[in-house]
Amino acid sequence: MKYKMAYLGPCGTFCEEAAQRYTDPDKWELYPCAGIERVFAAVHHGEADSGIVPIENSCEGSVNQTMDLLAYEYDLNLAGEIILPVSHNLLVRPGVNPENISRILSHPQALAQCRHYLSENFGDLEIIDITSTAEAARRVAEADDAWAAIGTAAAARAYRLEIIGSGIQDRPQNETRFVILSSPSQPTGDIYAGSYKTSLLVYLLNQPGALFQALEQFYLYGINLTKIESRPAQTRMGEYLFFIDFEGHHLDDQVQQALSGLKSMTRDIRILGSYKAARPGRYQ
Amino acid sequence: MKYKMAYLGPCGTFCEEAAQRYTDPDKWELYPCAGIERVFAAVHHGEADSGIVPIENSCEGSVNQTMDLLAYEYDLNLAGEIILPVSHNLLVRPGVNPENISRILSHPQALAQCRHYLSENFGDLEIIDITSTAEAARRVAEADDAWAAIGTAAAARAYRLEIIGSGIQDRPQNETRFVILSSPSQPTGDIYAGSYKTSLLVYLLNQPGALFQALEQFYLYGINLTKIESRPAQTRMGEYLFFIDFEGHHLDDQVQQALSGLKSMTRDIRILGSYKAARPGRYQ
Repeated sequence: MKYKMAYLGPCGTFCEEAAQRYTDPDKWELYPCAGIERVFAAVHHGEADSGIVPIENSCEGSVNQTMDLLAYEYDLNLAGEIILPVSHNLLVRPGVNPENISRILSHPQALAQCRHYLSENFGDLEIIDITSTAEAARRVAEADDAWAAIGTAAAARAYRLEIIGSGIQDRPQNETRFVILSSPSQPTGDIYAGSYKTSLLVYLLNQPGALFQALEQFYLYGINLTKIESRPAQTRMGEYLFFIDFEGHHLDDQVQQALSGLKSMTRDIRILGSYKAARPGRYQ
Repeated sequence: MKYKMAYLGPCGTFCEEAAQRYTDPDKWELYPCAGIERVFAAVHHGEADSGIVPIENSCEGSVNQTMDLLAYEYDLNLAGEIILPVSHNLLVRPGVNPENISRILSHPQALAQCRHYLSENFGDLEIIDITSTAEAARRVAEADDAWAAIGTAAAARAYRLEIIGSGIQDRPQNETRFVILSSPSQPTGDIYAGSYKTSLLVYLLNQPGALFQALEQFYLYGINLTKIESRPAQTRMGEYLFFIDFEGHHLDDQVQQALSGLKSMTRDIRILGSYKAARPGRYQ
């Protein structure tokens, strides 16, 4: 019997490609879910052993929905990450004339990454948010009208669409980082010799210098941050929580000392997980 | 002759309400623009004296498009801010039965702020991104089919729509912060005795501890941060720039000393502007 990896489906998404590259096909089968929240729910309810979701893009920034589901809705851990280059394509049913296109469908992040292309080439068209790029492709394949989707080459193959524009994202250097979700009851695996990364949620005390003093702990113990990102605390304007990624495992001595200092000066911290780093990287 | 304030229109948007509250109607006339980028362009080209755009929401976080237009596309300053409570409504043409609604239209931030409401009540419906909540209302008013818009009560009045759900945002405490854009050639106004806030863009050097050392400057001179937010540097994954808001005017002695320290240890800094704080607030 194979393990099950839930991903943001249907087939033909970037997330499916990330899942394929991350998992060993002899041990894992892929399990498509219609929406990021459904991936979280599948892991939470034990329908799947792990899940994979996008968390940030090098142009568009964080995927807010993933951040907020991690922080506020589900008590899941992070067990890994993978970074993929992203190339977007404009897909239509074979034979459709680009001039006749009446609507463009895709996932909001893909639409945002092609904003300039869309406004230059299709300024006045209706733009429609869909839960995934592949679902957008599926709808375009089934539509009677001349619609277009922004999606992957795999989606073009899966839904027999024609690629009439490729590499249409506004910036050529475009990468997406995906994280692996696991249930908190699962063991985090053995310590290995390579480079680890840890993700942390920090709820600061509402006092001057709170962030500075928190970061000082990392500095004192020589721990390199790879990312810091604020999200609204969902209370009132001006209150935030922080997602912090750093190099190292949460069981490392230095990290333990920093975390213990951090605990004494914050309202709360939550370790989302330690996992193999996709790529060594320093801050900023 | 009156001054012109460009805002994210058409009439009936939250942004129009913010513009009305911020300006003296004897001195200012409002100038609607179809999209956040058009507001920036109107100020940049001198069509308008100032502009007003949303920059963050207490639930959904930053408005990425505003942040990136400030950081990468336009050399405009910030001259003010205003914070408004946000309440969303579901709008239909009078007499439309909620069960017959076939599509829901709104601005992506409004859709995101009503995500739970939409998935509980209209799980399978088509959700459509529109450039503003008021434009969504206008389209619903003109549609032959039973469409619905998420928008303001003012939009319901302007387009003669019926409110069939009010306060439908997922969190009751929902506020949006708007900023006032001005051309860099405009004087920033006299120093007054109340509390000022300054917005800064910081491009860090790519070295360990860079963020900590930058924040240390604020700490050393007793300057309170009210916000820090990273945005992708649009180069490669893992490189960021920071939007930092703090209490005080950039011409204050303490602030000048902190900024001069900051300059020596960062790749670049850009002062977006000093302006009257909408509300005193400390960090976190």
